[in-house]
Amino acid sequence: MEKVYDVILARNPPRGRAFINRIAGALPLFLLALGTTDTAKIPSISAAGATPEITDFTPPADAELLYYGRCRCISGVPITPEGIPTPALITRSALRLAGMPSIVAVGGLRVAPSIPFINLGGLPGMDIKTGCAVKDAAEVLEKATIAGDHLTRNSDYVVVGESAPGGTTTALGVLVSMGYDAWGKVSSSMPRNPHKLKRSVVETALTSACLREGSLRNDPLKAISCVGDSMMPAAAGLILGAARNVPVIMAGGTQMAALLAIVNSMNPALAGNLAIGTTRWLIEDGTSDLIGLVSQIADIPVLAADMNFSKSRFAGLQAYERGVVKEGAGAGGSAIAAMAWSHGRITGDALLHEMEAGYESLVGLGKQGER
Amino acid sequence: MEKVYDVILARNPPRGRAFINRIAGALPLFLLALGTTDTAKIPSISAAGATPEITDFTPPADAELLYYGRCRCISGVPITPEGIPTPALITRSALRLAGMPSIVAVGGLRVAPSIPFINLGGLPGMDIKTGCAVKDAAEVLEKATIAGDHLTRNSDYVVVGESAPGGTTTALGVLVSMGYDAWGKVSSSMPRNPHKLKRSVVETALTSACLREGSLRNDPLKAISCVGDSMMPAAAGLILGAARNVPVIMAGGTQMAALLAIVNSMNPALAGNLAIGTTRWLIEDGTSDLIGLVSQIADIPVLAADMNFSKSRFAGLQAYERGVVKEGAGAGGSAIAAMAWSHGRITGDALLHEMEAGYESLVGLGKQGER
Repeated sequence: MEKVYDVILARNPPRGRAFINRIAGALPLFLLALGTTDTAKIPSISAAGATPEITDFTPPADAELLYYGRCRCISGVPITPEGIPTPALITRSALRLAGMPSIVAVGGLRVAPSIPFINLGGLPGMDIKTGCAVKDAAEVLEKATIAGDHLTRNSDYVVVGESAPGGTTTALGVLVSMGYDAWGKVSSSMPRNPHKLKRSVVETALTSACLREGSLRNDPLKAISCVGDSMMPAAAGLILGAARNVPVIMAGGTQMAALLAIVNSMNPALAGNLAIGTTRWLIEDGTSDLIGLVSQIADIPVLAADMNFSKSRFAGLQAYERGVVKEGAGAGGSAIAAMAWSHGRITGDALLHEMEAGYESLVGLGKQGER
Repeated sequence: MEKVYDVILARNPPRGRAFINRIAGALPLFLLALGTTDTAKIPSISAAGATPEITDFTPPADAELLYYGRCRCISGVPITPEGIPTPALITRSALRLAGMPSIVAVGGLRVAPSIPFINLGGLPGMDIKTGCAVKDAAEVLEKATIAGDHLTRNSDYVVVGESAPGGTTTALGVLVSMGYDAWGKVSSSMPRNPHKLKRSVVETALTSACLREGSLRNDPLKAISCVGDSMMPAAAGLILGAARNVPVIMAGGTQMAALLAIVNSMNPALAGNLAIGTTRWLIEDGTSDLIGLVSQIADIPVLAADMNFSKSRFAGLQAYERGVVKEGAGAGGSAIAAMAWSHGRITGDALLHEMEAGYESLVGLGKQGER
């Protein structure tokens, strides 16, 4: 596929190229939206934590890693049950190499991060099987929109990432309730994508909320409220507020397709300022279909950071080449921003080297994944 | 006194003029640090609320006014016991006329504002007479420094204001404990500055904390912890983080002298990036001495927005000419920033007109000062 720097133009290459040209040389603000959903605690649904219960700590730990190079609410870093470390390590490396400023916004968490963060007044997300996933979506979205506006009036552009374990299942819920053909198309951090389990959870959720596929085509707020997660109103608001002012890289995998559906439904005029930025692992994933999802929603470019960890010194990083984890904490989008800011001087390999240095010092810090 | 636009060069005119030249035409980020101190509940010490107990609502109400043009946690707007409205009305007008972005940071409050705000993990401030005013000053200051750094990497410069009822008494406590000659020099929002009461409160506070005048000359964090308020570590951190990157207008009256003492003690190399921005009412106040305080601490310029409300249609605004209220919520500094951004097109009169329009619609909203 066509590339600019180490950025793959994965969907609509002409518009992808034009987007890269708009942002090249500019230093963005990186915004990370955090949220949780108790859906992540359904066994075998998420690998964003060593155990289901510990997924509550993954978003704050990711955010702490960005600021301090180490986590505070857990020792080590968030890992999958197999011990593969969080993609926030990639984000941290991209932010460091480019000197990129970052601000974290909390949509609703069970564990607060030990960093300065934007409080949007939201509660943690409930299991979508209840049909009542997010209690305060409208209020959080309103506040996040204000924050997205104010934070970007002085910026050239922004990158908006997410950390929300269980988030691909809630993404599936939102996409399906809004009428998109998303069954079997969302991604997974697990070695095997549990599509059957996700479908069953979303079907239960829709039934509990008295919804059918497509019944919320024009009501994205209700889709978040019934079958979404607490990251969504935060990230959607940030994007809605920011994209009025500046270009926005929506940094993530198939969760960003759900956010695109929400944002596009609320303000379709913003599409010209949007691109999705992800990783090569995500777009090469045979068990999900980000491009197919985006194409149903809005004709925006999809960009993918070309990183290759096969020669890493660390088995935990090599595992990314087997398609586990793949994306999260804005890894792909922040990598793309670092590449574009440096006009390609920061390569996928440079990010790996920076990451290995940071990871090395972390591995010495304590046993991973334990509190 | 010399002026540039409607900005009075109140201290060190050559450096004041140079500072204005640096920022002219640029649009800053406005940061508002909120905090409380139970010291404000000592009868007759603060007029930043209709009654002592309601001062808990003043900082969040000020912040809500900036974002929405009306308050949410109270009806009407914060007023003094005599009914004079909050200077946040000036700030709101300056932000609107210049399209200036703003972000609110909370150092510690009893009532959270209904806006997106930066949570720094701090607790409300205790009465300084206990000698244990702020429990978590070091942690809040660290987080605020990070936020100040990240928020300003993409900005031309920042304005840092405060809303902290009772804050001139805590300012007196910090200044005296750090060895400055501040007795009788801090300002007041009241018609008559209660210097005797403030002195007695601070003397009790010093005794409770086993301190003498000057014993914390080199320990500003302990000064905040013993005799300060919860706004201070937030504002000081924001200034410390921001002034590494960009010029900073410290927007306020004599509370900014205490913050200057803190910041200058922690990093004297930042002084070249600092100016204090306040109002004409404050520097013309015969019952306080901001210039005299600043001159003891660091040779930085003091700027004052020249606004005159004597011809206002509203008695509540005319009262500013009698020297009540005078400053707060970054009113003077934000006005200066709007004047400099517009190269003088935004005048003191233009701010008054904008303010009257906003105030008119508010006065119709409900009885002031009641919840």
